[in-house]
Amino acid sequence: MAVGNVELVKLLPIKGIKIGIAEAHVRYPNRKDLTVFALCEGATTAVVTTQNQFCAAPVQLLRQHLQHASPRYLLVNTGNANAATGEDGKHRALATCEALASLTNTTAAQILPYSTGVIGETLPSERIITGLPKALANLDEDNWLAAAHSIMTTDTVPKGHSEQVTIEGVTYTVTGISKGAGMIRPNMATMLGFVATDAAIAPDVLQTMLRDSVAMSFNRITVDGDTSTNDCCTLIATGKADTAMIDSTTHPHYAAVYQAIASVMLRIAQLIVRDGEGASKFITVQVIGGNTSDDCAKVAYAVAHSPLVKTAFFASDPNWGRILAAVGYAGVDLDQSTVNVSLDDVRICERGGLADGYTEDQGAAVMSRPEITIHIDLGQGQASDTVYTCDLSYEYVKINADYRS
Amino acid sequence: MAVGNVELVKLLPIKGIKIGIAEAHVRYPNRKDLTVFALCEGATTAVVTTQNQFCAAPVQLLRQHLQHASPRYLLVNTGNANAATGEDGKHRALATCEALASLTNTTAAQILPYSTGVIGETLPSERIITGLPKALANLDEDNWLAAAHSIMTTDTVPKGHSEQVTIEGVTYTVTGISKGAGMIRPNMATMLGFVATDAAIAPDVLQTMLRDSVAMSFNRITVDGDTSTNDCCTLIATGKADTAMIDSTTHPHYAAVYQAIASVMLRIAQLIVRDGEGASKFITVQVIGGNTSDDCAKVAYAVAHSPLVKTAFFASDPNWGRILAAVGYAGVDLDQSTVNVSLDDVRICERGGLADGYTEDQGAAVMSRPEITIHIDLGQGQASDTVYTCDLSYEYVKINADYRS
Repeated sequence: MAVGNVELVKLLPIKGIKIGIAEAHVRYPNRKDLTVFALCEGATTAVVTTQNQFCAAPVQLLRQHLQHASPRYLLVNTGNANAATGEDGKHRALATCEALASLTNTTAAQILPYSTGVIGETLPSERIITGLPKALANLDEDNWLAAAHSIMTTDTVPKGHSEQVTIEGVTYTVTGISKGAGMIRPNMATMLGFVATDAAIAPDVLQTMLRDSVAMSFNRITVDGDTSTNDCCTLIATGKADTAMIDSTTHPHYAAVYQAIASVMLRIAQLIVRDGEGASKFITVQVIGGNTSDDCAKVAYAVAHSPLVKTAFFASDPNWGRILAAVGYAGVDLDQSTVNVSLDDVRICERGGLADGYTEDQGAAVMSRPEITIHIDLGQGQASDTVYTCDLSYEYVKINADYRS
Repeated sequence: MAVGNVELVKLLPIKGIKIGIAEAHVRYPNRKDLTVFALCEGATTAVVTTQNQFCAAPVQLLRQHLQHASPRYLLVNTGNANAATGEDGKHRALATCEALASLTNTTAAQILPYSTGVIGETLPSERIITGLPKALANLDEDNWLAAAHSIMTTDTVPKGHSEQVTIEGVTYTVTGISKGAGMIRPNMATMLGFVATDAAIAPDVLQTMLRDSVAMSFNRITVDGDTSTNDCCTLIATGKADTAMIDSTTHPHYAAVYQAIASVMLRIAQLIVRDGEGASKFITVQVIGGNTSDDCAKVAYAVAHSPLVKTAFFASDPNWGRILAAVGYAGVDLDQSTVNVSLDDVRICERGGLADGYTEDQGAAVMSRPEITIHIDLGQGQASDTVYTCDLSYEYVKINADYRS
């Protein structure tokens, strides 16, 4: 079901990070649903979290913990989001952190909790606590692919990527995994993303890298426009590449390491769209010629969220008027006569009307492709922005009408 | 397919308005697709139009005409929206107005043009012009029901309503018709709405009545969140009830006439949602306890637009966590612990968590109803707002994947 190339490269281990996995029967039996990341001493960690006001209990707790200690463990469960669960939800999230702390001789504040799954149900914290020793028993540097599997919910494929970059004789490795297929319109981060590098990076620099790379990856994808209660993206730098700390954005290694991180972020964010619920097409919406990048993003999101545009792509119908209608209601002042639109290399709209020489056959041919870029030129200025999305199919309705049953 | 009570009352004629209908073969043969309203001399007319920047050629022309003359004819075609058609589209819209003007001894500026249908295709203005004499030949006061049929596109039922109110011995009649089923998130008006009364109403008062009644009717419905390029709502006052002109909002007849107009507007707006593409449920989203009505509207629209909420309603699945998630990303600051949510009379969420005593059986029972009200209390202030929507079904995808084929 996932669209196009969703093959994973070999996920490279990151020195200083071990991952353990267990079956804790959070929602279903016989499913790997508990994942523990153990970080080496000295690792730096940055996290961006959802802007949803109904953010889940673990998200609230994670924010507190980040203020008080340097993380040593990440504790992730699937099957239950522990969201809209009130005070009880916070107590249960804390109980799982305390249990892991006592097993590992750390403090609860050194544990970051993450939950994903159904909203509004009580977290079975006892079963998670029971599963922790099993997860700790198989901690291994080479468990990234297994972790990509164990954090899946409605995902149909595991999502991960690795890159290496060598600069001045030092080779840095970056590996990341993500999960998410529905309730996807990240707002600071996607459902769950974990990215790590063996570079040594100062905390404030790491936060900058995370913010910038998320802005152009997880914050530029949308499946259904629903921002999750549990979105978190975490970036860890272990420092095990044994070189000097990258302590500013002008450090000679900054650009290369940032590029590798951004590349991994973009790949694992796009994989979420490729695996979007019911997706049969991967659509890039590229808007140029705007007065501001914010205007371009508004237009791109209006197009990417329009159910009429998305169903037309599902049907491979070059019903480009729906694209223009969405451009028109994006909330951006525009002059119809300066707007041009192409699908891949086929110009369909010129100066707000039908392009000279355009034929329905050309449109139908490009719409039948599994990967399509919508180019929209507003003809106003120099700004641009790009958003990634998928089509809207029967399957989307089926998955979300059936999810809890 | 339409949900609940969509039966029309007898549509009462409005003295001073005659309607003629013809088959002009705009898009398909043998279909009544051309409608002409003839207004008596002295009738006042108010129009609100779409805020879509890609507003159609007839909308642009209609705005110009309203500035220059008092309308005597409305000219409506289905089958082609004449949107995203550039300069040629404007020339063609004007040509149809000029043709009607020459047949009726009026000027083109006294004609208001309306088009609805597929976007981005050339308006077959010649065929419309050929059809005009046929439409003029059957002008009749009693053609409202026939007009409700002839303005339909993907609608499955005709939409109209009439009300009468008697005050100080004067009986006023209000009749309205509308069309629309998809690309519905009106922003000043729906796809097409025509409402008329035999009251005499001064132009500025009529505009106030239109603005206020549209705000609580057409501007509070959404099917798919797509604002059309062609939305127009028109209110006409013929003055044929033969009583004094309502020339201010303090006129003794104002409130009664306004109430009848607002009631017709709300009914014909709600009929659009009941006939929403693929709709199987009619959903009222009522938000109370906000600091401002704007906050309440934001929350109501976030819930009403969420594909996850809409598919859960289609599935009759009381997956209320999705409602809370949408409340959370509506862009309104809130304290989870003050939020309560009920479905009809079933309290599902109290203080941001599961309500005491709530059972899935209760939730499933209420979700199986064809008409459901979601009550959301933000627990912040005294403001409120209400939005009407429908669920998201396989049928929605099917209709919009097949529409042009």
